[in-house]
Amino acid sequence: MTAQDAYRQLLTIVRERSTLESVAGLIGWDERTYMPPKGGAHRAEQSSLLARLGHEMMSAPRVGELLAQAEGSELTRDPDAPEAANLREIRRGYDRAVKVPARLVAEIAKLCALGQTIWQDARKKSDFAMFAPSLEKMVGLKREEAQALGFADRPYDSMLNDFEIGATTSEITKVFADLRAELAPLVAAIGASGRKPKKEILAREYAVDRQHLFAQNAAAAIGFDFAAGRLDTTVHPFCSGHGPGDCRLTTRYDLHALNQGLFGTLHEAGHGMYEQGLDPAQFGTPMGTAVSLGIHESQSRLWENQVGRSRPFWEHFFPRAQQMFPGTLEDVGLDDFLFAINSVERSFIRVEADEATYNLHIILRFEMEQALFGGDMKVGDVPAAWNERFRAIFDMTPANDAQGCLQDVHWSCGGIGYFPTYTLGNLYAAQFMEQIRSDLAGLDDDFRRGDFRRLKGWLNEKIHRRGMQFRPRDLCRRVTGKTLSHEPLLRYLRQKYAAFYGV
Amino acid sequence: MTAQDAYRQLLTIVRERSTLESVAGLIGWDERTYMPPKGGAHRAEQSSLLARLGHEMMSAPRVGELLAQAEGSELTRDPDAPEAANLREIRRGYDRAVKVPARLVAEIAKLCALGQTIWQDARKKSDFAMFAPSLEKMVGLKREEAQALGFADRPYDSMLNDFEIGATTSEITKVFADLRAELAPLVAAIGASGRKPKKEILAREYAVDRQHLFAQNAAAAIGFDFAAGRLDTTVHPFCSGHGPGDCRLTTRYDLHALNQGLFGTLHEAGHGMYEQGLDPAQFGTPMGTAVSLGIHESQSRLWENQVGRSRPFWEHFFPRAQQMFPGTLEDVGLDDFLFAINSVERSFIRVEADEATYNLHIILRFEMEQALFGGDMKVGDVPAAWNERFRAIFDMTPANDAQGCLQDVHWSCGGIGYFPTYTLGNLYAAQFMEQIRSDLAGLDDDFRRGDFRRLKGWLNEKIHRRGMQFRPRDLCRRVTGKTLSHEPLLRYLRQKYAAFYGV
Repeated sequence: MTAQDAYRQLLTIVRERSTLESVAGLIGWDERTYMPPKGGAHRAEQSSLLARLGHEMMSAPRVGELLAQAEGSELTRDPDAPEAANLREIRRGYDRAVKVPARLVAEIAKLCALGQTIWQDARKKSDFAMFAPSLEKMVGLKREEAQALGFADRPYDSMLNDFEIGATTSEITKVFADLRAELAPLVAAIGASGRKPKKEILAREYAVDRQHLFAQNAAAAIGFDFAAGRLDTTVHPFCSGHGPGDCRLTTRYDLHALNQGLFGTLHEAGHGMYEQGLDPAQFGTPMGTAVSLGIHESQSRLWENQVGRSRPFWEHFFPRAQQMFPGTLEDVGLDDFLFAINSVERSFIRVEADEATYNLHIILRFEMEQALFGGDMKVGDVPAAWNERFRAIFDMTPANDAQGCLQDVHWSCGGIGYFPTYTLGNLYAAQFMEQIRSDLAGLDDDFRRGDFRRLKGWLNEKIHRRGMQFRPRDLCRRVTGKTLSHEPLLRYLRQKYAAFYGV
Repeated sequence: MTAQDAYRQLLTIVRERSTLESVAGLIGWDERTYMPPKGGAHRAEQSSLLARLGHEMMSAPRVGELLAQAEGSELTRDPDAPEAANLREIRRGYDRAVKVPARLVAEIAKLCALGQTIWQDARKKSDFAMFAPSLEKMVGLKREEAQALGFADRPYDSMLNDFEIGATTSEITKVFADLRAELAPLVAAIGASGRKPKKEILAREYAVDRQHLFAQNAAAAIGFDFAAGRLDTTVHPFCSGHGPGDCRLTTRYDLHALNQGLFGTLHEAGHGMYEQGLDPAQFGTPMGTAVSLGIHESQSRLWENQVGRSRPFWEHFFPRAQQMFPGTLEDVGLDDFLFAINSVERSFIRVEADEATYNLHIILRFEMEQALFGGDMKVGDVPAAWNERFRAIFDMTPANDAQGCLQDVHWSCGGIGYFPTYTLGNLYAAQFMEQIRSDLAGLDDDFRRGDFRRLKGWLNEKIHRRGMQFRPRDLCRRVTGKTLSHEPLLRYLRQKYAAFYGV
């Protein structure tokens, strides 16, 4: 067999595996949208069978043999060529599938299902002690996983890598430290400013069916293709791509919180446009797959914040919002509306945080989980350590653990190393946007006309169509000419809040 | 390995296969309800992958080895025992999976996809010649399949068996001939009757959202469990069970046809209650699977017609219908309403036919496809033969092929042998209902109170919980003490229409 033949067979295998994963994604979407309540137990059976079959496909010895035949051939001569990228990432997936024992995978999956329920209860009762044994066990299992996967420097690198290929603790530590050093004083200055937004504007009564229409129109206007997607409502919003032509967003509406459903939709639409922008001809191969959670988050944050909270965007949409909600926004001026949707306020809950303080919440989690995973912090010490760090950053103390270390689901399901991708997303988004503004003159005029095609086209070409050709940091360097830095995000935030808060 | 061990391993395999099929069913449901328009091509890839994986599971040589070890052991000593029934049907499934070459399965699947599109076009243009080559090819492939599967008497038996285990051409020919001999004169007498229902009652304006509420309430009242199911709308209504706790119905509403959405829902709810009545502990094994299409159809027809079009049912529901549609039914009496929903009229289109004439449509198709499949009729002669037979039965001639031999999708997709199960369903339903009325005194009083629990309980115990323990004819004999006959259906129809039409 030639290296070419081996390569083609590998692509067939990974495509089938991805097709199976796209089915798993779809039944996961159904589980959270339309599944009848009694369907849960069987749905778990279906999901676990699909996961097992997909793992069997990917970890078959045949995959290793084919990889060995294709690697080191002319296909990998140019490391930037699509074939080389595909082989590099298939190798990574195969090694991962083979290195982690099936027993460990099963144990983590089981503890995830169990741990989530326990965490929910613990959060409801604000009782960390209830959750501590599950967390202890999960950290242990994830440490085992890190050992099995291997790592260059620290075991926590292996956790980061699972969500952001190529990320290292040392690199993120540096960028986050730089960010924190300038962001914390900015947030403090905003807190001290005498100017305050009229937040009640967003808490008026906004009919939910009209919110849905408005959100759907906005998502379509920025370029989400509804012939290849949907928008439904769920308790926890998400975006889920199920292969070419089928990407689904969800959001939630609150009668008295216009921003929640709308910005939630723009956020998920940003994710969705990444999925819709992947090359359908490459479906199922690394070249047709989103490269990392951080880059994915950059797309959602870019559309939600850099675009969706900007003045030019609302110069187009504000009159439309006034029409959509008659009698509700007529007495409001654009300036007051913009200030309200760009309000900054220290708060306890990450998912409710604004653009500026959000990153401080992430930095706290990044530090916490490093210490926890590295063994410098005992599970029993988590609540006290959380509160102490929280005070250091925000100068406030959570009233209880539900408001503190119990607020997020991630750890209960083994998502250690996940949090940093949120702030990486903000950093990438700002860095991309600076480059975009330099590449595309007059972009704000596009927005003022409700025309987002040039921006979408740029993202399609520079980010989406690349799939996994380049790893995230490399992609960032190629696209912006610079290594990832905290500066663009800070410049963006400083400029924005100078206008609103006079800081 | 003991026979018990082999048996247990077999159950694990068929359960996994069924789990995969339940996923295939779910994504098929999604395809017809919520899938975005551009998702079709990838959905076809997903479905065909799941079908292939399921076929591989079932046709693995290991299944044959395990069967050989379990068969002829103490497990099969009592042929009525659940273990024996499971082994009998797993054997049947294995033989079927092994006997039909994968190439033939793929060719049929491909022609089905293609043929359906061609058939749709041909029907739209009422041009049989367009569809003839696909039909010719499909008949050829299905004949090949029959040869591969084997048959006792005639190749067409093998087609019948695919939908109704144990059915033979000779047996169905006999029952259908008996039925036709008495039904045709009954329909003619009804046509000659001076009494006519006020059909306009059902064509008034019925708000679709209220139709949905009313249909949903009725389905819940007869016993469909909405915590383990849903009701959505589709162009072509269907019921699809996706494993324990998840069975979904669809229907369609017409602003000016109250009967369509309502009786469609009761029909699908009858199917759904069969699925919900299966033993969840036996999921995926023959003992936890519906036994045949004919028995399945008996459940839908029983609830739709025997119950849903009965006077006692409407003594409960008619006042509720009057309330649900204020201003629409106030001037209508129960008698006129009942006559309208039990109207009989000769017509060209099967799916629009009433309870009486419906079976004549089926008998025509049964005769046609036998002749076609057996080689006594050429594909090119189908339109003329159809019209001639139609005249002989209904004394009317279709104006074109869209109204005649092109009206049904079944043949385009290889569903030869499927039609008879519709009338078998009517026959079973009537025969079951006579037994039920003899077992459960005062059933009509239950209905008048809107209480359907005793009827549902009987069906759960006698039919649903049996799974595939007995083959359809055997089940009928055990439950009713008699072989399948045309007489109960005729008695039921005669009694009903004597009252309405004075015949």
